[in-house]
Amino acid sequence: MTRACFITLEGLEGAGKTSRLADLKAFLEQRGKTVLATREPGGTTLGERLRELLLAPDQGSMAPLTELLLMFAARSEHVARLILPALEAGQWVLCDRYVDASYAYQGGGRNLGAAPVAALEALLPARARPDLTLLLDLPVELGLARANRRSAADRFEQETVAFHQRVREAYLARARQHPLRYCIIDAAADPDQVQAAIERAVERLL
Amino acid sequence: MTRACFITLEGLEGAGKTSRLADLKAFLEQRGKTVLATREPGGTTLGERLRELLLAPDQGSMAPLTELLLMFAARSEHVARLILPALEAGQWVLCDRYVDASYAYQGGGRNLGAAPVAALEALLPARARPDLTLLLDLPVELGLARANRRSAADRFEQETVAFHQRVREAYLARARQHPLRYCIIDAAADPDQVQAAIERAVERLL
Repeated sequence: MTRACFITLEGLEGAGKTSRLADLKAFLEQRGKTVLATREPGGTTLGERLRELLLAPDQGSMAPLTELLLMFAARSEHVARLILPALEAGQWVLCDRYVDASYAYQGGGRNLGAAPVAALEALLPARARPDLTLLLDLPVELGLARANRRSAADRFEQETVAFHQRVREAYLARARQHPLRYCIIDAAADPDQVQAAIERAVERLL
Repeated sequence: MTRACFITLEGLEGAGKTSRLADLKAFLEQRGKTVLATREPGGTTLGERLRELLLAPDQGSMAPLTELLLMFAARSEHVARLILPALEAGQWVLCDRYVDASYAYQGGGRNLGAAPVAALEALLPARARPDLTLLLDLPVELGLARANRRSAADRFEQETVAFHQRVREAYLARARQHPLRYCIIDAAADPDQVQAAIERAVERLL
């Protein structure tokens, strides 16, 4: 019996994380795993209230450091109340966005750089590090076109193409720095191909 | 003409910070200063929403690290939107609780220790360090008795005497570590004496 694993899905708006996470959950359950699927920001009552503050288009601007700290406040609660208890109970955890999203969105998109994100990451418990991060990568224009078809834009989706380009580049830089943990998936491919690539990447944890 | 100063008031519940801050503002205005009086957590629209989350007795428990990160999220917004712009415009800033309160309440009261607080403090701009911190010190039992006469207990006031004892000790430890910045005021004395001690401490900045 393998140890319960913590898998994160990362990527731009429109990369298809939500659908792929649902399919990956079903795949792991077919393999006999108990799976907790969750998302950031959110996952707890307090986290969902912070999600509203962070995503509401009418929230207006906030300082980039404030945004980063709120993301980590929601994350701290998520780790303490949901992610660690699940892992300790032997459940696999799938999370739609996690620490790497702060490197990408606040570090890259908001131009804060990696240092403040790393300072905050160091405050989280070591067991809360992902075993595998699936980066659903695709060109910014394609991701935004898909996201715009789907629903009204949130505070991040409203950002410029240049912002999302910085996010994508920061994600790819993280993948280069952590090649053993990261798996880059071509999210521009059709969903069946994307799902097959995800399952191949996860297979090595089983 | 002196440079605009940043003065923080710290202390336990019931130490009389709110009244003393109002009197200190009047004192400085009589000396011709333009003064911004503000408080933490709060001070901005977002900060006041976070204050509700942090203080509401029905919020229930949150992980100590979450509480610390939320305090710093509110603080980051407060610094960027209110404190630094006021200082840069030549206004004196009086703040009811600031970074030292996190050393006392989260570091001491919640037993997180000083290290995570210091890691977060390092993310704030250097200009946002107080020039003078007035610690209104008094025995825990006296402070809580005063606070209980005043209003319904918030999430911090509901804590045990042992919690508030750790808060007081952490404040006094900060004062020992920063003797030039800190001035310890005996807040058990009568209000006129407390105010006179505050004014003597502030006089050296004028």
